[in-house]
Amino acid sequence: MNDKAIGIFDSGLGGLTTVKEMAKILPGEDIIYFGDTLRVPYGNRSRETIIKYAMDDVKFLLKQDVKMIIAACGTVSSVATGLGLDIKIPFTGVVEPTAMAAYLSTKNKRIGVIGTTATIKTNSYKKEIKRLDPEIEVIEKDCPLFVPLVENGFIGNDTITTLVAEKYLLPIKNSNVDTLILGCTHYPIIQPIIERIMGRGVAIIDSGKATAKFAAKKLKELNLLNKKGKKGIHSFFVSDSIESFSKTADIFLGEESRCFVKKVDI
Amino acid sequence: MNDKAIGIFDSGLGGLTTVKEMAKILPGEDIIYFGDTLRVPYGNRSRETIIKYAMDDVKFLLKQDVKMIIAACGTVSSVATGLGLDIKIPFTGVVEPTAMAAYLSTKNKRIGVIGTTATIKTNSYKKEIKRLDPEIEVIEKDCPLFVPLVENGFIGNDTITTLVAEKYLLPIKNSNVDTLILGCTHYPIIQPIIERIMGRGVAIIDSGKATAKFAAKKLKELNLLNKKGKKGIHSFFVSDSIESFSKTADIFLGEESRCFVKKVDI
Repeated sequence: MNDKAIGIFDSGLGGLTTVKEMAKILPGEDIIYFGDTLRVPYGNRSRETIIKYAMDDVKFLLKQDVKMIIAACGTVSSVATGLGLDIKIPFTGVVEPTAMAAYLSTKNKRIGVIGTTATIKTNSYKKEIKRLDPEIEVIEKDCPLFVPLVENGFIGNDTITTLVAEKYLLPIKNSNVDTLILGCTHYPIIQPIIERIMGRGVAIIDSGKATAKFAAKKLKELNLLNKKGKKGIHSFFVSDSIESFSKTADIFLGEESRCFVKKVDI
Repeated sequence: MNDKAIGIFDSGLGGLTTVKEMAKILPGEDIIYFGDTLRVPYGNRSRETIIKYAMDDVKFLLKQDVKMIIAACGTVSSVATGLGLDIKIPFTGVVEPTAMAAYLSTKNKRIGVIGTTATIKTNSYKKEIKRLDPEIEVIEKDCPLFVPLVENGFIGNDTITTLVAEKYLLPIKNSNVDTLILGCTHYPIIQPIIERIMGRGVAIIDSGKATAKFAAKKLKELNLLNKKGKKGIHSFFVSDSIESFSKTADIFLGEESRCFVKKVDI
């Protein structure tokens, strides 16, 4: 057992969906979240810049003396592969756990992946699924408008988001996949719209949920679970002003956003 | 006369619309453009961060020994007012020239302003118009989805952009304005859609165009025009990799994007 916190980072606040899932599975764990809101979004930056930023984020969490680090950022997980190699505590991105969950889910060996343009460009999910089973057909599609739509509140039953989603998802739907990976932290917020378009026969794999499950399993295996038996404390750090945190955090966390938030220099 | 270049900067590549307008009015002028693509977008950063970034951008252009600086960035022009005070060469943002153009255009004293959330929040255009004539009614509306729509190619006669624009512009249209300010560098790209929704009776003031006209007039008055009589050279600098420059620059500049582009550290 180990009473240190779990460290989770993302380029911005989307990774809060992973915090939420983690808290559901392991309510007794302390979580330290870092959102690099000063430099968000990472998706349209160069590879070298993304790796540099990811290293900064990891260093910040290591300074907080966490027992595990989760890169909840799809871009970091896809671009900065190998980031965990030099880290002496357990580390995971979102790609490997999510690809594994999709691999275990598909029956017809046809999996769809949606994500930001940067994530899809790396083919990271496709490569990882092919590593698990080269026979699986993977159909990828970037959906660059989903993040701004979610962040600007075009959620719920929104007509515009539905139209955009219909356009983006058409090639995936036409490919008869039985499993669809939501390869971006923001997408679970509009999961009802995506599910309605894809239809009942398609299993949706939320990368935040799959990663939280994987991390929990890993902590258990390594005997690193917090056994204090109290409700965990969640601390949130951002790199730009905290003003905008509450508004966006509300979308992702609900009530939880009234917790401790602090601005730090990165 | 003065053969030095005109310096233009923006948080990203949207300011290229101002370069285009400037080149139309003063084809003989050299232009040095700086796009802070490493730190784009500024719109959701804190006030102190925006001012720091703007100072970095100004310093870079001063090092290039330009004869005038134009902040083509709506966010910088709205948030970092007073930025030009310490600069020893002519300086202008987009707000003052654009407000003046709208003030000269309106007959019924009702002006609409659309822009990013950060720009609209500052009420910068409203304040400047009210300073010119306190009797003018100014109706403001932020349109946060327009930038991602333009950058992701939802342009031309796009159905989704039209739906979004109808939603955003409704309160402005209902206010019977006779003049509408496009307070963001990206909006001229979807001007046909905006014009169709607003109808024939509404004059559209493009902030890039108004600012280019104002800057040209100022250079003339100060006897700073380039009189070499040759076609001006345009140089483009960005702070992140140049890969993504061409794709986005095509939307804003057309042919011109095949010019000199260089990455610099900021």
